[in-house]
Amino acid sequence: MTVHETAAPTDPTGGRPVLPSRSRVRPLGLGEVALEPGFWGGMQETNASATLGHCEEWLERAGWLANFDRVAEGTTGPDRPGWCFSDSEVYKLIEALCWEYGRTRDPGADAAVRRLTARVGRAQDGDGYLNTYYGHGGQPPRYSDLEMGHELYCVGHLLQAAVARVRTTGPDELVEIARRAADHVCAAFGEGGREAVCGHPEIEVGLVELGRALDEERYVEQARLFLERRGHATLRGDRVPGGSAYFQDDVPIRDARTWRGHAVRALYLSAAALDVAAEHGDAELFAAVERQWENAVARRTHLTGGMGSRHQDEGFGEDWELPPDRAYCESCAGIASVMVSWRLYLATGDTRYADLMERTLFNVVATAPSADGRAFFYTNPLHQRVPGEAADASALNPRAESGTRAPWFDVSCCPTNLARTLATWHTYAASADGGGLTLLQYAGMRITADLGGGGVLGVVVETAYPDDGAVTVRITDPPSGPTALRLRVPSWARGAVLEEGGRRRTVEPGLAVVERVLVPGEEVRLLLPMEPRFTWPDPRIDAVRGCVAVERGPLVYCAESIDLPPGVGLDDLLVDTSVPPVDREGGVLLHGRAHGPGGAGADGGDVWPYGARREPGGGAVRFTLSPYHRWAERGPTAMRVWLPVVPGRSAAT
Amino acid sequence: MTVHETAAPTDPTGGRPVLPSRSRVRPLGLGEVALEPGFWGGMQETNASATLGHCEEWLERAGWLANFDRVAEGTTGPDRPGWCFSDSEVYKLIEALCWEYGRTRDPGADAAVRRLTARVGRAQDGDGYLNTYYGHGGQPPRYSDLEMGHELYCVGHLLQAAVARVRTTGPDELVEIARRAADHVCAAFGEGGREAVCGHPEIEVGLVELGRALDEERYVEQARLFLERRGHATLRGDRVPGGSAYFQDDVPIRDARTWRGHAVRALYLSAAALDVAAEHGDAELFAAVERQWENAVARRTHLTGGMGSRHQDEGFGEDWELPPDRAYCESCAGIASVMVSWRLYLATGDTRYADLMERTLFNVVATAPSADGRAFFYTNPLHQRVPGEAADASALNPRAESGTRAPWFDVSCCPTNLARTLATWHTYAASADGGGLTLLQYAGMRITADLGGGGVLGVVVETAYPDDGAVTVRITDPPSGPTALRLRVPSWARGAVLEEGGRRRTVEPGLAVVERVLVPGEEVRLLLPMEPRFTWPDPRIDAVRGCVAVERGPLVYCAESIDLPPGVGLDDLLVDTSVPPVDREGGVLLHGRAHGPGGAGADGGDVWPYGARREPGGGAVRFTLSPYHRWAERGPTAMRVWLPVVPGRSAAT
Repeated sequence: MTVHETAAPTDPTGGRPVLPSRSRVRPLGLGEVALEPGFWGGMQETNASATLGHCEEWLERAGWLANFDRVAEGTTGPDRPGWCFSDSEVYKLIEALCWEYGRTRDPGADAAVRRLTARVGRAQDGDGYLNTYYGHGGQPPRYSDLEMGHELYCVGHLLQAAVARVRTTGPDELVEIARRAADHVCAAFGEGGREAVCGHPEIEVGLVELGRALDEERYVEQARLFLERRGHATLRGDRVPGGSAYFQDDVPIRDARTWRGHAVRALYLSAAALDVAAEHGDAELFAAVERQWENAVARRTHLTGGMGSRHQDEGFGEDWELPPDRAYCESCAGIASVMVSWRLYLATGDTRYADLMERTLFNVVATAPSADGRAFFYTNPLHQRVPGEAADASALNPRAESGTRAPWFDVSCCPTNLARTLATWHTYAASADGGGLTLLQYAGMRITADLGGGGVLGVVVETAYPDDGAVTVRITDPPSGPTALRLRVPSWARGAVLEEGGRRRTVEPGLAVVERVLVPGEEVRLLLPMEPRFTWPDPRIDAVRGCVAVERGPLVYCAESIDLPPGVGLDDLLVDTSVPPVDREGGVLLHGRAHGPGGAGADGGDVWPYGARREPGGGAVRFTLSPYHRWAERGPTAMRVWLPVVPGRSAAT
Repeated sequence: MTVHETAAPTDPTGGRPVLPSRSRVRPLGLGEVALEPGFWGGMQETNASATLGHCEEWLERAGWLANFDRVAEGTTGPDRPGWCFSDSEVYKLIEALCWEYGRTRDPGADAAVRRLTARVGRAQDGDGYLNTYYGHGGQPPRYSDLEMGHELYCVGHLLQAAVARVRTTGPDELVEIARRAADHVCAAFGEGGREAVCGHPEIEVGLVELGRALDEERYVEQARLFLERRGHATLRGDRVPGGSAYFQDDVPIRDARTWRGHAVRALYLSAAALDVAAEHGDAELFAAVERQWENAVARRTHLTGGMGSRHQDEGFGEDWELPPDRAYCESCAGIASVMVSWRLYLATGDTRYADLMERTLFNVVATAPSADGRAFFYTNPLHQRVPGEAADASALNPRAESGTRAPWFDVSCCPTNLARTLATWHTYAASADGGGLTLLQYAGMRITADLGGGGVLGVVVETAYPDDGAVTVRITDPPSGPTALRLRVPSWARGAVLEEGGRRRTVEPGLAVVERVLVPGEEVRLLLPMEPRFTWPDPRIDAVRGCVAVERGPLVYCAESIDLPPGVGLDDLLVDTSVPPVDREGGVLLHGRAHGPGGAGADGGDVWPYGARREPGGGAVRFTLSPYHRWAERGPTAMRVWLPVVPGRSAAT
């Protein structure tokens, strides 16, 4: 799996979140790709102009920033606001701001980084320990609750923030804070130290990347130690639903068959394992994570790419346990899934990972924030049975579930996680290698990619994707010799067409490749089929048996109660799949029947809902679906992605 | 709804758990009915010979009994074993022992009551307060956590134990302890006291019944106060999943549409509301609970009668949210549902309530204990995807979920709740009124019922139900005048036949009535159809769409993985509903297809499970179902009640 050796940490083309020492393909840096207005360009701009400031404002308002001041001032006590992991929100915001500054050189972003760093730094203890919940006056002692205390988790996010800083600005105070914190972690938990792990993986991924960024092998080694220690039930499983599996402490990661337990924990851990595998050339460890990805994607992933089937533990369920109504699909789990798939892609160049990333980006990550970037979904279920309550737009939301996006949460991991992800979205859009450039995600953008060995390829991508399936790549600055321009053809894109060099040919899902001398000004055009389509579930997914979903391009669609004809309830709809879905005014039109408020089973009189079989009756209806990622934008609604079909109708697939 | 005025508390025919001052029909006392060997007689004997001693042993072993000693000895501290509600397990065991002593006059049961009462009594504070978790040295103050502290909940169970004592033995030390505790509650939370409620309803039902038993109207009034205070969000909803609804503190009970939140809490509250409604002739309150029963039974109840669809809050879900795999169906919720339905039946004489009781008794209450009465299920899901781990038969089980029944739990509400229910099972089997006797549940038993006005009707019921559908009622001691003998015909019993007086006639679900002068020695025989039958769900229950279940008489059946042909997985089965189910060797034989380990959807290569429609293939199989209430008796298995059907097959209902 080792082909590409990356550039030095001072890579002049700009930073990026993940930079393996060895990988099959090379991730582009912030300086190599820039988004134009469009779906993702627009979200990135909203993130910059609204979300970043919104997050800082709420961190201040909630008192989570002032927690650092209190440590510095020696005024800590038992009345500390926020959960024990609230420090991490500050670090994720700093990380997002660093990437934003790297992307735009906006002095406001830099000033915010400095402002926040100063407050964080004052709270660091002399030995490098940094946490505002533990270890100071009136607080529980350091590392007194490894299961749920999140101390190392918080440090992991601090290290990721420092990675963003050093790769976009260079060493500074933040980087030194992180270095001291990492050194402290190595001293406390390294060889000869406490043989323990943190209940929430994250320190590992932070340590590896900081090790890469600062060329500190010790940090990578400490991450490896944490990984190897895990899976031996050293954490108290009786404290959490599901036992040790909640923490992925039930089975060593090398032996695990699939993802289980808390979804974000499982995914952060796998991301770190891939990083360690990349640094050490550990094929066994890599294969273990690849196997877990395959099994979990095949049997534990929702149509949206969302992961997590249980509210009780924010966790994966068993194989085939994929309830749309109780789907958890935490926004952070979507982000974490992208992190894992990205690392798998970099190591293998296999586009199936980019396929899942696209699905997850459009249908989980893009679903979470509101259009104005100031409110968020924490969970992303595929079925809302009754319209939820509208979230209070001016108050911290005590619940992860509400009928509309909320400005901030009691547990507010998602907003800052979205912020750092959107600030770096374009670094996932393409990859380079010695042979050429691969376009993975489609958006209007300009790319100037260093292909190594002095070759540079500049292209402009023009597209209205996902509204339209045409993607035009104009060559602006080709290398002189033969070069590969590869375009990912998504797995759903049957019948895609590639136009180049005056030729037009059908291309299969995977990579459409143009490999020759490229000519300045020439255009390569990929035409992706954007007709809406019915999608059927594996018959073993019990919760959606007898249902169909509608997709269009990369987008999953949904029915919202406010779009139904008068008098028709969302529970009463049946889709007639003999009539294909068609585009209509930004939505998709379906035909079906509304069986009306049916009675219960024949046994048991009026009430008991089980008994003799009843054929649905009801009249014909037509109704329109809209993209799932925009659901509840018009207020609380009932919603469903999976729609029951009229029994016995033949398939129109 | 007021027809019958009950006998005095010193009713010579023996005690019973519920004795409304006014009701349409009269519940029989322990002395009026006795079970013979058979399904329920056997369970009651196992409860007496095994479960009661098992519970006392575990209460001692877990240290929950010694908690009372520590309070008495002034040695309390922060290291107290058990949850804050563990006192209630002691009280429920005492209640069970009181009923058992009332049933059998077994001196061992009486000795156990005295033994436990002595230890409890020593822990009572001078002002009547009694709790081993709060209010003493090194403990949190009294009533410092009304949301989750369970102090009044524990007192409620103490009062129910005292009701059992006074109705089976008469006033004694236990009754005085309860009286002092109830007086303390009235002083602390009555008019002029603290205007608050307990997070877990139970004190209300205890207060009303103790008020009835001791003729203390003050206690009934205090219960009414608690009821009326609830529903105004005085409890902190942000502490629990689902908010105030978790505690039923979101909407006053008079205004609520359906049951919601924590299932046991919701049901105990409704039981108390019916008691208050009966005492005060409050038709509005009665109708409110009746409405909630109707809506929850119609849309929030599993086929087994089990209630609770969510693990997160042990709670009801939304309407139609009835996942078989994540069904919670807590054993205690089944018991609480029986408590509510029994009160509704007593007030109305409507057999639909007895129908639900039968379903719940056979498929939830009888499912929970092991055959030997020494292990229990806490949750009763309708689908186990993979065989769980076998519970350690010698250790306290930290989880509510395990692959087999467990001897005791960290939260161990169910074993003692089952014990008190099984000890009084026969008091739910029939009712009396001025006109006659109504048989509600079928088991071999002897009844000598006081019909009021001096009339007594004695009958012997002989039956092998539910193995066999013949129920023979032999008249042993009839009144001289015309008398009604009514037999409940369950809602599922289409085509039932009644034989009496030389005649044979088909009877409809509801009541089969013989009303005339009854002759000593004559037999009335009800023949219930016991052919296994397919049962279909309401099409709005998403989680079991396209599935069928099998029932036989009152029993729900299930497929267990160990009964499948070699090489066939439980996920691969499809039922061919064109072939009716047939009895075979204690099980039910079905025909179907095994579609084998199917691939995923056509899109996305090998892995992605969504895409083009696939018709199931696979070969014909036959397989046998067994009664659900005995599942996992042979070790951990995968199990399902709802089985997917071969698409397109016509119904054989």
